[in-house]
Amino acid sequence: MSRRPGTLHLNAFLMGVGHHEAAWRLPESDPFAHTDVGHFQELARIAERGKLDSLFLADSPVLWNNVGRRPSGALEPTVLLTALAGVTEHIGLIATASTTYNEPFNLARRFASVDHVSGGRAGWNIVTTAGADAARNFNLDELPAHRDRYQRAAEFIEVSRKLWDSWADDAALGDKAAGVWGDQERIYPPRHVGRYFKVAGALNVPRPPQGYPLLVQAGSSEDGKELAARYAEAVFTAQQTLAEAQAFYTDLKARTRALGRDPDGIRILPGIVPVLGGTEAEAHALADELDRLIVPEYAKRQLAITLGISPDDLHLDRELPAELPAEEQIEGAKSRRTLVVALARRERLTVRQLIGRLGGGRGHRTFAGTPEQVADAVEDWWQNGAADGFNVMPPVLPSGLAAFVEQVVPILQRRGLFRTEYAGRTLRDNYGLPRPANQFRADALATSVS
Amino acid sequence: MSRRPGTLHLNAFLMGVGHHEAAWRLPESDPFAHTDVGHFQELARIAERGKLDSLFLADSPVLWNNVGRRPSGALEPTVLLTALAGVTEHIGLIATASTTYNEPFNLARRFASVDHVSGGRAGWNIVTTAGADAARNFNLDELPAHRDRYQRAAEFIEVSRKLWDSWADDAALGDKAAGVWGDQERIYPPRHVGRYFKVAGALNVPRPPQGYPLLVQAGSSEDGKELAARYAEAVFTAQQTLAEAQAFYTDLKARTRALGRDPDGIRILPGIVPVLGGTEAEAHALADELDRLIVPEYAKRQLAITLGISPDDLHLDRELPAELPAEEQIEGAKSRRTLVVALARRERLTVRQLIGRLGGGRGHRTFAGTPEQVADAVEDWWQNGAADGFNVMPPVLPSGLAAFVEQVVPILQRRGLFRTEYAGRTLRDNYGLPRPANQFRADALATSVS
Ligand SMILES: Cc1cc2nc3c(=O)[nH]c(=O)nc-3n(C[C@H](O)[C@H](O)[C@H](O)COP(=O)(O)O)c2cc1C
Ligand SMILES: Cc1cc2nc3c(=O)[nH]c(=O)nc-3n(C[C@H](O)[C@H](O)[C@H](O)COP(=O)(O)O)c2cc1C
Repeated sequence: MSRRPGTLHLNAFLMGVGHHEAAWRLPESDPFAHTDVGHFQELARIAERGKLDSLFLADSPVLWNNVGRRPSGALEPTVLLTALAGVTEHIGLIATASTTYNEPFNLARRFASVDHVSGGRAGWNIVTTAGADAARNFNLDELPAHRDRYQRAAEFIEVSRKLWDSWADDAALGDKAAGVWGDQERIYPPRHVGRYFKVAGALNVPRPPQGYPLLVQAGSSEDGKELAARYAEAVFTAQQTLAEAQAFYTDLKARTRALGRDPDGIRILPGIVPVLGGTEAEAHALADELDRLIVPEYAKRQLAITLGISPDDLHLDRELPAELPAEEQIEGAKSRRTLVVALARRERLTVRQLIGRLGGGRGHRTFAGTPEQVADAVEDWWQNGAADGFNVMPPVLPSGLAAFVEQVVPILQRRGLFRTEYAGRTLRDNYGLPRPANQFRADALATSVS
Repeated sequence: MSRRPGTLHLNAFLMGVGHHEAAWRLPESDPFAHTDVGHFQELARIAERGKLDSLFLADSPVLWNNVGRRPSGALEPTVLLTALAGVTEHIGLIATASTTYNEPFNLARRFASVDHVSGGRAGWNIVTTAGADAARNFNLDELPAHRDRYQRAAEFIEVSRKLWDSWADDAALGDKAAGVWGDQERIYPPRHVGRYFKVAGALNVPRPPQGYPLLVQAGSSEDGKELAARYAEAVFTAQQTLAEAQAFYTDLKARTRALGRDPDGIRILPGIVPVLGGTEAEAHALADELDRLIVPEYAKRQLAITLGISPDDLHLDRELPAELPAEEQIEGAKSRRTLVVALARRERLTVRQLIGRLGGGRGHRTFAGTPEQVADAVEDWWQNGAADGFNVMPPVLPSGLAAFVEQVVPILQRRGLFRTEYAGRTLRDNYGLPRPANQFRADALATSVS
C-alpha cells in the first residue's frame, strides 16, 4: 500500500491530572491541580513544544458523581482557554460548550472573544450535554429528548454562524478625519426567528480572526454524525478497534460528501490513551498500577448510569446482565452506551475488568507500549483509513503528555508524519483548513490558507 | 471638620480608548484598540502601577447605536478579565454581567473561575440591562419590566450565593492513601426552587479564594438602591454635584444599615472624568478639543432613547422639551434619565451643550483641571460624606489613565489619602472588606482580613 499523502494531526485532550480516573492517587500527582491554572499553563506549554495542532478541554455544567471518587469540578473552559492563550503562541485552543444550556448570543460572543484574544486559535466542541443532573441546574426537571437536543444544536450553530458573520471583515473603517468609525451597511443583523431561538441584532464583537472558531463535534449517534457531517470541521470519537474506526471514518466522510461538503474539510480524530514505558513491561506495569488504584464502587455506579440500569444489577466479578436497555431507550449518551456494551461482550469482560478498561480511557482506545509501538499504532490507523489524526489522552498529566511529546512526537517527525514547525498562525492553519467566507457577502470567497 | 479616618478607594473604569465618545478621533488614539487585548493589558499594568483597588469593564449584550458613531463592540468581559489577570498581581478585576440574560449556574461558575484564575481578584457588577435591543437578542420581543428585572436580579444573586457556598472551604481532602478525594457531606446542593430559577445541584467549581466575587451594583433607581443595600459591597454611581452625591451616599448607607448590614460593608464610588492639564487652561483646551470632535446627530439619537422620545423632538440649539415622559414611564435606565433631565434643567443647557456634557462622561461628573485641583475635588467629596472613593473614568486612554496615575495618585499618597503599596492579596483585601462566611456551615465565621 502506498504512503498516504500529507501529515497527521494531533490534539492534546487535557483532563485534570490525567485521563485515568486513579491518576490523582499516584505519588507524582497534585490532587488539586485540576482547578489550578498554573497546571494547565504547564500542559499547554508542553503541548506547544511538541508542535501539537491543538489542546482540548472537555466540560459539562454539572458536578459529576460523588466528590469522594476523584478530583471534582473544573474551571469554566472559555476562561481557562483565555489563560492558556496568554502563555502560548501557536497551539489551537478548543473547549466544549453546551448548546442545550447556553444562549447563542452569549456563547458566540465568548468564542469570538477567545478567537480575538488568541489571535485566531479558538475552537468550539459542540455538545448537547447528556444527563438529567445538568438539566436540573437549568430550570428543567428532566433531560430534553435526544432528538430535541440535536435539533436545538443545529439551530444554535446556524444562529451562531449568522452572528459571527454579522460584521463584514471590513466593517470597521476607523476614519478619524470624517468622524466615521464603521460602515453600518456592512453590519448584517441576523433577524433570526426559528424554532428554538429569536435573535435580532448583530454580535457586539467584530468578525474574529478565523471568521469563526473551528467547529468540533464529538457525538457518535445517528443524530450526532449528521450534525458533524453538516457542520463540523474536526470530530473527536472513541473507537476501540481498527475495523470500527474505519467504518466510522468511511461513514462520516461519505455523509459529509453527500451534503456537498469536501470530505477533507472534516478531520476525524479517534482518541488514544498512550500508556508509555521504556519497555513493554514497564508500560504494562504503569497500566496495572493505575488500575489497582481504582475504587470500584464509584465506577460501578457510573457504569450503571451509562447503561440505564441500577447499580444493584451489576456484580463486580460477573459479566454484564444479558438483558440491557437498547440504545433507543437511552436519552443520554447513546453511542457511549453502545460502545461500552460492545467492548464488554466482545472480550467477555467482568464488570471489574470493564471498569478497569473504562477507568483508563472511558471507552477510548488504551494502548500500553514503547514509544516506537505507540508511533506504529498511530501510523497504522492513519495510514489505513481510520483517522486523520489523534486525540491524545495521556493517562497521567503532566508526565504522560511530556512523555508523548518527548518520545513519540520525534518518531512521528522522523517518519515525516508530523510537522517539525508550525506553518501558520491560526487553529485552522494547523489543521490545514480554509478560513470560512462570510455568508452575507455577495463577493465572499473562502480565502485559502497555506 | 476633623480629618476622616482611613483612606479612599479608586477604581479604573476602562472603556475602549476613553470615556469621551470622540476620544478615538484624537491623533494619539488607535481606533481599533477597543477589541485589542494588548491595549487593555497595558491599561491594567498602568492602573496597577498606580496601586488602584480595581479596574472595571462595563458591558451589555447588544451592538449599540450605529457603528458609524464610535468604536463598536467589545470583547466579552470575563474573557478579557482573565487575560488581564495574567499580566497583573494585585489589582481587582470587575466586570459587568446581566442577570436578565444569563443563567445563574453558568455565570456563577464563570466568576468563580475568574476568581480562581486570578487568585481572588474577581468582582461582578450586577446589572439588569436596559433596552429592548438586548431583549431581542434573547428570544424576547420587548424589554421585561423594570420591577421584574430587579426581582429576577435578587433571586439570581441568591442562587449564585448558594452555588458559591455549595462547597465548604474544606470539602476537598485529596486523601490519596484512602482513595477519597473529597467529603460529599461538605457539598451543599442548592436545591433552589424559586420564581425565576430552579437550580438543583452544587457548582462544579470549588468555593473560590474570596468565597465569592466582590458584588458590585450600579443602578440608582429605587429598585436599584434596594438591591444595592441588600447585596452590594461596592456601588458605582453617577453624581453631578456634591449635594446630590451626599444625599445618595447618606440614603444608601441608611438603607444598608436598615437591613442589618454594616454600612462600612458597602463602598460608594461616584464617577469622575478627570480632564487633566499642566495648567487649567491646558485642561480646558483638551476638553474643548474633545467636544469639538463629537458628531452631534448620533448623540442626539441616543439622548432621545434615554428620554423616551423621538429624535425629531430634539433641536440642537434649543433646551429639552418642557414635557417629557416621567421616570415611572421609563422601563430602561430610570435613574440615568432623571440625572440627564436634572442636569439640563439646572444649567439650562441646549441639546448641543447637553450632548457635550454627556459625551464626556455620559452623566458622570466631568472635572477639568490641574492634578492638584483634581486631587482637591476627590478629597473634598471623600472628606464630606459623598464618597468612599472614586470610579476614575479617563476621557482618553491610555494617556488619561497614565496622567492620573503619574500626577494625581502621588498627590493623594502624599496627603495620606491613598495606599503606597498593596496590603493584601485579594480584591476584598484592597477594599478592606471581609471574606464572606459560607451560609451552609454551622460553624461559619467571617474571617477578617488585614
Ligand atoms: C473525545 C470526546 C470528548 C467529549 N467531550 C465531551 C464534553 O466535553 N462534554 C460533553 O457533554 N460530552 C462530551 N463528549 C460526548 C459527546 O459529545 C456526546 O455527547 C456523546 O458521545 C454522546 O453523544 P451521542 O448521544 O451523539 O452518542 C465527548 C465525546 C468524545 C468522544
Ligand atoms: C459607573 C456605572 C457603570 C455602569 N455599567 C453598566 C454596564 O456595564 N452595563 C449596564 O447594562 N448598565 C450599566 N450601568 C447602568 C446601571 O447598571 C443601571 O442599569 C442604570 O443606572 C439604570 O439603572 P436603574 O434602572 O436602577 O436606574 C452602569 C452605571 C454606572 C453608574
